[in-house]
Amino acid sequence: MQLGMVGLGRMGANIVRRLMRAGHDCAVHDANPAPGQALAAEGARDCSGLKALVEALAAPRAVWVMLPAGAATEGAIAELAGLLSPGDTIIDGGNTFWKDDIRRAASLREKGLTYLDVGTSGGVWGLERGYCLMIGGDITAFQRLEPIFAALAPGRGDIPETRHREDRVSTAEQGYLHCGPNGAGHYVKMIHNGIEYGMMQAFAEGFDILRNANSGRLPAEQRFDLDLADISEVWRRGSVVTSWLLDLTAEALAEDGDLGEFTGRVDDSGEGRWTVEAAIEQATPAEVLTSALYTRFRSRQDHTFAEKILSAMRKGFGGHQEAKTKG
Amino acid sequence: MQLGMVGLGRMGANIVRRLMRAGHDCAVHDANPAPGQALAAEGARDCSGLKALVEALAAPRAVWVMLPAGAATEGAIAELAGLLSPGDTIIDGGNTFWKDDIRRAASLREKGLTYLDVGTSGGVWGLERGYCLMIGGDITAFQRLEPIFAALAPGRGDIPETRHREDRVSTAEQGYLHCGPNGAGHYVKMIHNGIEYGMMQAFAEGFDILRNANSGRLPAEQRFDLDLADISEVWRRGSVVTSWLLDLTAEALAEDGDLGEFTGRVDDSGEGRWTVEAAIEQATPAEVLTSALYTRFRSRQDHTFAEKILSAMRKGFGGHQEAKTKG
Amino acid sequence: MQLGMVGLGRMGANIVRRLMRAGHDCAVHDANPAPGQALAAEGARDCSGLKALVEALAAPRAVWVMLPAGAATEGAIAELAGLLSPGDTIIDGGNTFWKDDIRRAASLREKGLTYLDVGTSGGVWGLERGYCLMIGGDITAFQRLEPIFAALAPGRGDIPETRHREDRVSTAEQGYLHCGPNGAGHYVKMIHNGIEYGMMQAFAEGFDILRNANSGRLPAEQRFDLDLADISEVWRRGSVVTSWLLDLTAEALAEDGDLGEFTGRVDDSGEGRWTVEAAIEQATPAEVLTSALYTRFRSRQDHTFAEKILSAMRKGFGGHQEAKTKG
Amino acid sequence: MQLGMVGLGRMGANIVRRLMRAGHDCAVHDANPAPGQALAAEGARDCSGLKALVEALAAPRAVWVMLPAGAATEGAIAELAGLLSPGDTIIDGGNTFWKDDIRRAASLREKGLTYLDVGTSGGVWGLERGYCLMIGGDITAFQRLEPIFAALAPGRGDIPETRHREDRVSTAEQGYLHCGPNGAGHYVKMIHNGIEYGMMQAFAEGFDILRNANSGRLPAEQRFDLDLADISEVWRRGSVVTSWLLDLTAEALAEDGDLGEFTGRVDDSGEGRWTVEAAIEQATPAEVLTSALYTRFRSRQDHTFAEKILSAMRKGFGGHQEAKTKG
Repeated sequence: MQLGMVGLGRMGANIVRRLMRAGHDCAVHDANPAPGQALAAEGARDCSGLKALVEALAAPRAVWVMLPAGAATEGAIAELAGLLSPGDTIIDGGNTFWKDDIRRAASLREKGLTYLDVGTSGGVWGLERGYCLMIGGDITAFQRLEPIFAALAPGRGDIPETRHREDRVSTAEQGYLHCGPNGAGHYVKMIHNGIEYGMMQAFAEGFDILRNANSGRLPAEQRFDLDLADISEVWRRGSVVTSWLLDLTAEALAEDGDLGEFTGRVDDSGEGRWTVEAAIEQATPAEVLTSALYTRFRSRQDHTFAEKILSAMRKGFGGHQEAKTKG
Repeated sequence: MQLGMVGLGRMGANIVRRLMRAGHDCAVHDANPAPGQALAAEGARDCSGLKALVEALAAPRAVWVMLPAGAATEGAIAELAGLLSPGDTIIDGGNTFWKDDIRRAASLREKGLTYLDVGTSGGVWGLERGYCLMIGGDITAFQRLEPIFAALAPGRGDIPETRHREDRVSTAEQGYLHCGPNGAGHYVKMIHNGIEYGMMQAFAEGFDILRNANSGRLPAEQRFDLDLADISEVWRRGSVVTSWLLDLTAEALAEDGDLGEFTGRVDDSGEGRWTVEAAIEQATPAEVLTSALYTRFRSRQDHTFAEKILSAMRKGFGGHQEAKTKG
Repeated sequence: MQLGMVGLGRMGANIVRRLMRAGHDCAVHDANPAPGQALAAEGARDCSGLKALVEALAAPRAVWVMLPAGAATEGAIAELAGLLSPGDTIIDGGNTFWKDDIRRAASLREKGLTYLDVGTSGGVWGLERGYCLMIGGDITAFQRLEPIFAALAPGRGDIPETRHREDRVSTAEQGYLHCGPNGAGHYVKMIHNGIEYGMMQAFAEGFDILRNANSGRLPAEQRFDLDLADISEVWRRGSVVTSWLLDLTAEALAEDGDLGEFTGRVDDSGEGRWTVEAAIEQATPAEVLTSALYTRFRSRQDHTFAEKILSAMRKGFGGHQEAKTKG
Repeated sequence: MQLGMVGLGRMGANIVRRLMRAGHDCAVHDANPAPGQALAAEGARDCSGLKALVEALAAPRAVWVMLPAGAATEGAIAELAGLLSPGDTIIDGGNTFWKDDIRRAASLREKGLTYLDVGTSGGVWGLERGYCLMIGGDITAFQRLEPIFAALAPGRGDIPETRHREDRVSTAEQGYLHCGPNGAGHYVKMIHNGIEYGMMQAFAEGFDILRNANSGRLPAEQRFDLDLADISEVWRRGSVVTSWLLDLTAEALAEDGDLGEFTGRVDDSGEGRWTVEAAIEQATPAEVLTSALYTRFRSRQDHTFAEKILSAMRKGFGGHQEAKTKG
């Protein structure tokens, strides 16, 4: 099939590569000319602008936008909406807020355009492993574009079949899924990332305790000097916490058990915040997902004003001086 | 090799089976005669008591105790200590508190006995998949018994090698690891379970939000009726949250998307509590692991007294009546 | 001064009463005729509708809207906007979301109307104790209406002066404060309520632990049968946790130490949720305020789906049955 | 009455002063001679050692130990136990772990000595305000020493009586309370401090959000530049969060709204940790009290290893670089 790709960062460019490997025909564009030229050398048709890209595709067209969520995506889609024809489809594969999808889809629908929101997981590994795709929007457009999604997804591979799914008919085993109407794709991706935050934090705390098992604060006879790299490796074999995140942790710890390369300032993307907001709108308690988010907030500060308030109170009622030393 | 096994519950009996499949010679005992008789039919030597079990083994002996942590394990080990000879080894494969290991090992050392604490992960799947073994104690005893541990562990299997481990020499890739002196095995297992709690809770909250995405509390145009079984399945393919716990969740949701079989009262074992205590002793913040534990505490109550205190205060300052309905 | 009051629930009616006691002249209206008639008997001018109420006031008018946040408030203000004249002021004394204030004030400004958002704390006690008022909006309108705010606020009373405030000029000591431009009043009130949630939960958890100090789960020699009413009372004298919320708790526990009147289903108002959202927008960690909110969410459910997910996983990996009994 | 005081730090010395003001006769000792000499100038009998102190008192003696919890207290009580006579009483007024009280009381009982554990709240303000006393142990010894406790406690003062206590007979209104058998005094004090941590953290987070309301991360039209000193002051008047901790916060913010004197490294004493451990032993969820503790742990570190683990994972799956800048 034909697909237009707007945005050729690491994700967009690798999606194009994986599609071309599967025999699809890709027209591409990026504000920066370099990645389009590189992809042209691999067989893509590099276009100088959105107009050229739209003209390079036969109707009904499909254009995948893979840009940072927010203004960049919003702008590109608005421009595309003026160039495309009724029956064409815009795919937003970025990390868009799901309520923006609902709004945007309604607006495009008035122009006869269909819109699919696609949550895309896989990161730098997607080119080889395939991308896990969570898709929201018009079912007919989804079905028309299934060859694209099937090519991007990992497929069954050698992952064991899940019991009790014998009678189910679903693309889920292929690694792509139509989750519901517009917004549902990014909603499911948002929760995926929320869970990811929680799992990461669970590992992070666990390894922190393991490392501090040798703390000088503990009685000497109750300390352990543990090899975190080996522990993460042994857990990859038959333990309950077996997971891809553990694999990645084992690799990082094998490279450097002190993780000396890292300072510990941890960014958060919108999905973690939106997950908490979704939980609050529903009145669903989400302690772990929220704590994982707050840890990242805290990690980017030297000290919070909250901590100074605590110190001020302690001085006020007890005359306590602040801790002079760390730890 | 020869091994004596005390305690033939599901874990103990399957460990014996896996050892016999690898050609080891097992003498077994359980207070209840049935499981010993069953294992005898499979080739084990069933012994009527600990004395008979000790006599059935040639020195230097190794006796694995697989009983509930606490009084049962303590009692069996005390009795064994009176029957065994210097140079023999007692293995505690249960979920013992690591400080009990340190105390117990010192006491057995005075009698010339060595003690290994072995954290064992794998649950009902261990017989087929192998057990992940985290081992603390005397390195010589560990090395002498490596054939036992190697037979129980999953081995390399088809799990991809971790990058940066090329030059490491470790049994971790085999699925068993000598973690350090006595207590270290159960300490590492304790943290494993702590992480497990956190990961479970991350998934649990995420699926809770997905399910409540259809809540009547939300604006009608912002609701989704999501298929949790398919979502858990698609995440098994190329997503960041790929894990064994996700596999199990996918299976449960495929069987019944409402999980109607379950009430939601969730037990906790000692490891989750000890993990938090270890964190506190070190002054390591462990928000997620602790929240995961508290969720289980809360799940076993209809209402906490804390909640009644809140209601009483709200009535006191605002004249607020309590919520009459749920949700 | 003259003031119009729209909404004569407990809060609105008592505000009118406190104003009349201070000699102010109040025109009042409520959709339900009863409270207006009652207030008329106490000296207020009861009006049959908003038009009548506006006509009963001399320009520049001030109309205080004391209705549930959301549609009721929004509708009343829209109607008033069509009736009032340039130079008049609308006061929203309810629990409006601060971003709504910003939007609304801009819209009213175009019509020459000024708008003040007033966070009002004091609950059922405000009539006697006075109301703590947090005010946002045009400083001139605030100053014009200061006699109203001063009459409603508690005043200095016998509360000891705060050290280091000797050189400050502020109405804060009187119990009312111009906090900033529109939205600032409700923003400060929102955070007040967020803190209130956290403090309440701190007390709630503490008393829960005190009560459970007699739990049968504990070793018999480590149990205490504590008198919570007396403990809350003794803490009112010289302890660090001395507070009005403690006073209310002491009263409730003195009435019934089991709080048998309450089930423990605890509502939450918007402010707690908005506080968390404000924290997330700023990337400010707010663990305690958020946990306090989630506890209330959880209190209104019998079981969460999250808990069933946990049970399903535990069955999956360990064959664990759910807890049959509580506690 | 006569009382011996061992340990003349700020708390011990001020307790002696308050007792002498009430006409009691105090023999005192401290390892450091200066505070004893100072108290001698105010009327106390300064003793050169514990033996001299014991000899300075008439039987039945009462000796109050006011030393750091742990080895110092343990050592002093052991030495006193060898010097005192049956019928004498040792009071531990420090922050001892309640299980140590139970053990210690049993040991002293064998020697005919009685032991009272007294949780003492009031900090640097106790000399003037009086101390809130939570007392565990033998009721007869408590009653014999009531004049001491009554002199130290704040008394009724002008604190309004709690409704529903009309028919109660209790010393709680005086500010001292016999809470139960040995350990109960320190147990109640422990929970008091746990609640204190939670309340402090609630205020700290709230003021942090108020301060960050002016964050450059927020849209310009949604920022507020709030005066925290005035806000804390206005809340002292009629709001729900009225409390002594708020009074102290208002004072600190009035002195310096930036709290520039403080770095934000916050110590924790044992009580916060023991509160969490008590909750876990009971299976009582205590989210807020625990989060408050963890915030302090985190405040004393530049970065946790947990945060580096998060960064390492993010690099692993997404190629994400760490945040370069703060906030």
